[in-house]
Amino acid sequence: MRLLVVNPNVSASHTETIAAAAREVATPGTIIDAVNAPFGPRYIDSRGEVVISAYATLMALARHADGHDAAVIAGFVDPGLGAAKELLPIPVVGIVEAACLTACLLGTRFAIVALGPRLVPVFRDLVRGYGLSERLAAIEAVDDPDELLVENRSAAVAPLAAAARTAIERAGADVIVVGGAPLADIVPELTNALDVPVIDGVRSAVRQAELLVGLGWRKPRTGSYSRPGPRPLLGVPSEIAALYAAGSEN
Amino acid sequence: MRLLVVNPNVSASHTETIAAAAREVATPGTIIDAVNAPFGPRYIDSRGEVVISAYATLMALARHADGHDAAVIAGFVDPGLGAAKELLPIPVVGIVEAACLTACLLGTRFAIVALGPRLVPVFRDLVRGYGLSERLAAIEAVDDPDELLVENRSAAVAPLAAAARTAIERAGADVIVVGGAPLADIVPELTNALDVPVIDGVRSAVRQAELLVGLGWRKPRTGSYSRPGPRPLLGVPSEIAALYAAGSEN
Amino acid sequence: MRLLVVNPNVSASHTETIAAAAREVATPGTIIDAVNAPFGPRYIDSRGEVVISAYATLMALARHADGHDAAVIAGFVDPGLGAAKELLPIPVVGIVEAACLTACLLGTRFAIVALGPRLVPVFRDLVRGYGLSERLAAIEAVDDPDELLVENRSAAVAPLAAAARTAIERAGADVIVVGGAPLADIVPELTNALDVPVIDGVRSAVRQAELLVGLGWRKPRTGSYSRPGPRPLLGVPSEIAALYAAGSEN
Amino acid sequence: MRLLVVNPNVSASHTETIAAAAREVATPGTIIDAVNAPFGPRYIDSRGEVVISAYATLMALARHADGHDAAVIAGFVDPGLGAAKELLPIPVVGIVEAACLTACLLGTRFAIVALGPRLVPVFRDLVRGYGLSERLAAIEAVDDPDELLVENRSAAVAPLAAAARTAIERAGADVIVVGGAPLADIVPELTNALDVPVIDGVRSAVRQAELLVGLGWRKPRTGSYSRPGPRPLLGVPSEIAALYAAGSEN
Amino acid sequence: MRLLVVNPNVSASHTETIAAAAREVATPGTIIDAVNAPFGPRYIDSRGEVVISAYATLMALARHADGHDAAVIAGFVDPGLGAAKELLPIPVVGIVEAACLTACLLGTRFAIVALGPRLVPVFRDLVRGYGLSERLAAIEAVDDPDELLVENRSAAVAPLAAAARTAIERAGADVIVVGGAPLADIVPELTNALDVPVIDGVRSAVRQAELLVGLGWRKPRTGSYSRPGPRPLLGVPSEIAALYAAGSEN
Amino acid sequence: MRLLVVNPNVSASHTETIAAAAREVATPGTIIDAVNAPFGPRYIDSRGEVVISAYATLMALARHADGHDAAVIAGFVDPGLGAAKELLPIPVVGIVEAACLTACLLGTRFAIVALGPRLVPVFRDLVRGYGLSERLAAIEAVDDPDELLVENRSAAVAPLAAAARTAIERAGADVIVVGGAPLADIVPELTNALDVPVIDGVRSAVRQAELLVGLGWRKPRTGSYSRPGPRPLLGVPSEIAALYAAGSEN
Repeated sequence: MRLLVVNPNVSASHTETIAAAAREVATPGTIIDAVNAPFGPRYIDSRGEVVISAYATLMALARHADGHDAAVIAGFVDPGLGAAKELLPIPVVGIVEAACLTACLLGTRFAIVALGPRLVPVFRDLVRGYGLSERLAAIEAVDDPDELLVENRSAAVAPLAAAARTAIERAGADVIVVGGAPLADIVPELTNALDVPVIDGVRSAVRQAELLVGLGWRKPRTGSYSRPGPRPLLGVPSEIAALYAAGSEN
Repeated sequence: MRLLVVNPNVSASHTETIAAAAREVATPGTIIDAVNAPFGPRYIDSRGEVVISAYATLMALARHADGHDAAVIAGFVDPGLGAAKELLPIPVVGIVEAACLTACLLGTRFAIVALGPRLVPVFRDLVRGYGLSERLAAIEAVDDPDELLVENRSAAVAPLAAAARTAIERAGADVIVVGGAPLADIVPELTNALDVPVIDGVRSAVRQAELLVGLGWRKPRTGSYSRPGPRPLLGVPSEIAALYAAGSEN
Repeated sequence: MRLLVVNPNVSASHTETIAAAAREVATPGTIIDAVNAPFGPRYIDSRGEVVISAYATLMALARHADGHDAAVIAGFVDPGLGAAKELLPIPVVGIVEAACLTACLLGTRFAIVALGPRLVPVFRDLVRGYGLSERLAAIEAVDDPDELLVENRSAAVAPLAAAARTAIERAGADVIVVGGAPLADIVPELTNALDVPVIDGVRSAVRQAELLVGLGWRKPRTGSYSRPGPRPLLGVPSEIAALYAAGSEN
Repeated sequence: MRLLVVNPNVSASHTETIAAAAREVATPGTIIDAVNAPFGPRYIDSRGEVVISAYATLMALARHADGHDAAVIAGFVDPGLGAAKELLPIPVVGIVEAACLTACLLGTRFAIVALGPRLVPVFRDLVRGYGLSERLAAIEAVDDPDELLVENRSAAVAPLAAAARTAIERAGADVIVVGGAPLADIVPELTNALDVPVIDGVRSAVRQAELLVGLGWRKPRTGSYSRPGPRPLLGVPSEIAALYAAGSEN
Repeated sequence: MRLLVVNPNVSASHTETIAAAAREVATPGTIIDAVNAPFGPRYIDSRGEVVISAYATLMALARHADGHDAAVIAGFVDPGLGAAKELLPIPVVGIVEAACLTACLLGTRFAIVALGPRLVPVFRDLVRGYGLSERLAAIEAVDDPDELLVENRSAAVAPLAAAARTAIERAGADVIVVGGAPLADIVPELTNALDVPVIDGVRSAVRQAELLVGLGWRKPRTGSYSRPGPRPLLGVPSEIAALYAAGSEN
Repeated sequence: MRLLVVNPNVSASHTETIAAAAREVATPGTIIDAVNAPFGPRYIDSRGEVVISAYATLMALARHADGHDAAVIAGFVDPGLGAAKELLPIPVVGIVEAACLTACLLGTRFAIVALGPRLVPVFRDLVRGYGLSERLAAIEAVDDPDELLVENRSAAVAPLAAAARTAIERAGADVIVVGGAPLADIVPELTNALDVPVIDGVRSAVRQAELLVGLGWRKPRTGSYSRPGPRPLLGVPSEIAALYAAGSEN
């Protein structure tokens, strides 16, 4: 099968990190195509950037989804995910939902560890939006993410592991979710540092997307994830308009 | 005070309906400026359109907010609301949150009546996202909204009133929220048809925005609604980039 | 419009403080009449005092509501609020509900800061009763309230600000609700001391009451907030009996 | 042991019905003293009546509690219950809490069947206030309670049984709570008419009160149910003032 | 009445401790018969042991229930409780449910104090399964339970009291539930050490079982707690098979 | 990889149905070994049977897990699942948890359709235990399951499809979970009959188990899913005792 992985930010180096993790975990025979968002933030760290990248992600999916069996949105805020599930003729998996649902198979309560406190309430709302608040033990954020990420990512391992241990000891987390797609390359180190399972979004989502295809996914023909059908849209790129023009029949 | 009302769709006639309702309810002395989204859907009826209009709404706010004391996002999915609260130096109110919170002052449980079933799960998630599920009695949707809206809006009164009565009798709703900004002009008729209070988003939001200004609103200087500060953004219109450039100090 | 503000305790100095805050925030043209409860506690700090003041508040409303467009119950336990909404022919707003709902417009999660730990579980139950627990980050109480309140109220600013900072830093609160009507006069100082919005009940409730009148409030004719109609009551003051005698028609 | 049962309304015939049910179920050796509220409604059917009877119930308890080992508040809205738990030196049990908690021992989800729809939202809020919403399958109300109650109470059996069957079949209730103290005398008939357990508040509360005494109940010395200690109270009957004067030591 | 108390582990000394507490609290006239599980763990401290003891408990009940009016399952994980409620012709009470529901009569929020952290998530899930999470303030566990229990149980008082005080001060618990049937003999000491009520499962359950009998308990004839009727079972002891053979009629 | 699928009932024909579905969906290279429970019910339809089969399942896992990379418990009540996760050195997936979590990737709210009403409250509690109640739209049960299952399984398609449509239309379900492992062979027919995705437990669990292995699953070394270590057990089969003897190190 062929899987499209969309990095919803514009950083080509993040896309490489994400693609490497995706390829590493994919089942033999799965081809991974990875693309950047065509515009928007370099790193998503605020609600405004989520709005921008949701639209950019939809555009990337509209442009590149053709010929793929499934898609993954690989930004740890699942930008544009519901819209993509509704509009695309293939299954689309977000890395937050994939990581959280996979974590539920492994522990009683998971914690999210993240770089930077700014998105903590956004993560909390995402988890609540997925109806998973009762499985969430804590969200722990490391301060000053920029330096860590840009200069020397492996320097993030120790503070993230410390944050994870706080969640394990104080909040009773028994599985850790790594809150950031660009952190995919330090997941192995983090796993070695901890005594409970560590789940990251990119790997989980690639496998969950394969799983949905393997289960014989079919596009819903009713409900809010069926295709909306033609709508009048003004000033919207033709790729996106084409998703609507495709009609409500699958 | 001067209040910016953004209609997040591109329909000028909807903007007129909304502006009329806003002006009718505004306190004397409040000036209402109403604008369309610069691009996007004519009517928001699916998750994809929410994504598009969220970005378009942010753009409209970035272009027009200057010189206003507060803003209202007048689409019944609150597109881009969190981002706007974070980025704008003035208070921003969404019509869903305003209607739901106002309804909580009037009844034990509110029902939303809407045109078309497609957004029902989106409304449900919105209300849950606002932490108000326990106050939500039901969401009742009238079928076939297009004809009603386009041809003859007052024809929507009877089916919406019937939907409201179902929610009152079966689900114990004791206040009704009208789920759609373009329905602002039929609210008086709907109010006359029912024995419980009827709340609409546009009127509530205008008044709640005035209230926030009246209470001496100040921009948060910490937390996720403080300004994010400069971020590298690629291919994003200068108006939006300027919101970030404004820095994290208010 | 004319607004009745009922201080549900018997302290005339608290009534003055409350009236001053109400008048300061009211829209020009709104006349504020403030009255004490006719009997009961000097300061409400236990469940028994809530029961007593609920009855006393109902009596105050029954005696003084005539000629007013709306009423505010200005004790931070909303004593008698549901009964007042049911019995009075005008909208009645409680300061807890007003503060909490207004706070929801400003932050993702609010904290209540209060003088004295005794009412903390009562506040928690109130917020839960309003269905707003998911928006409540924390309730932080300062010890030894009596001395602070009686001798030197401005001495309460520093400990309340410290409590607020605890809630902001540890519990992720991004808006603060001041838990006590008699604290209305120190709200400006508290606002200056903090980096997130500060909401107090009296100011919020005055504005929310104006808002409800401005939206064209009408008495419900069905549901549990419609008037109950005549009931046999023994030994109840004639003012209260008169509220029932008014019948179930509005 | 000696148990005080307070009927929070002023109807002596209701008090007789309640006392008879209490005596029938009490353990041999338990003496039941039953009193009316000294003032207030004849039958509690609205929130205003709850406020009045809460104060009247506190007064009845203050007057009569002396010499008793425990008390039961026998109105199906638990008026004044929290205040009584705080102020009295003996355990106090409400019939709603007792019935709901007892029902939880017998079924997965209980339904409340009640005479008259007016209190349905009040019951729902009570159950939510007790944190038991997840165990509540439904609240079913029979219309037109007045005639049934006044003229011919046994006529209430058939409609209450029908309401119970609706809750069993449609909402999955597997235990029924009878929502009204004055219905105590028809509980045996109702039990015979149904295939699931039927619980009433008076009988449950009498037994739960005995249980608390039997477990060696001691007055809390900290927390919000410890005694509040002396408070300045204006115009409050001496019996109630005496409860405060008793001090915070038990 | 005659009450069967099943200790779901195989420790005869635990059974003695439990039986002593049960006899001490039982109403005069109640005869307590106490039995061990016929096989399984000596002390239940993991989920596997819960599974084993649930089956063993069912077997003990099947063998010994005859001639009893009610039964108590006296292990602090309520092993096999739902199955026992369904299969037995007498009421069955679990000590976790009994303790938690009784605690709800006494405080706003209870804390469980337990020996050993391993079962904390199991307790949390149990309380959530009973729909009582909102009344749960905290679960506090003392480390290294084995030594304490085996060598010198009274040594557990001080650490359990300390854990309780943490829950009272930090989490606002106002009633303490002792999380372990074998701790029944130190409950009096623990009660003396604390300022809030202390509830233990064995005593609560004995009294709640008496209460159910006293209220005239009848076996449900419909719903999931009615008897399942004959089922084909392979390799299951005849006592258990007999419970099914008894038919679905009571 | 090699996957052990345990049918927790004793029906060899059910095991065949389950194994066939498992093999059909497994990734090439995965070997499926399927075994019956060694004793217990022929079909699980009551809580007592859940208790029996939980122990039998643990025994089957203890006997057969050696040499496998993962295990699936293929009864639609997840009997013994938590214990198996704790005791086994390989990942164990239950079909209820797998189906529900997979359904969450596909729709906003899922419905479970099942044969027979008796387990409906058990399913509801399972879903609540997994913290997924907010994603559950409804549980719809078809009556009289026995005849359908025994005589002519394909006769179950039409009533299950009708139940699913009820859940879709009335409760807003947009994905259907088939509630019973022995129904695996009619899932394709059911899928064809409906316009929304249909998920069954066996297929989902096989794929989710493969996914966990693919993500590099490691046994937790802390928390309640780490191995408990040696425990004194009386009268327990040596296979199960051996799981404990294995120690708490992985």
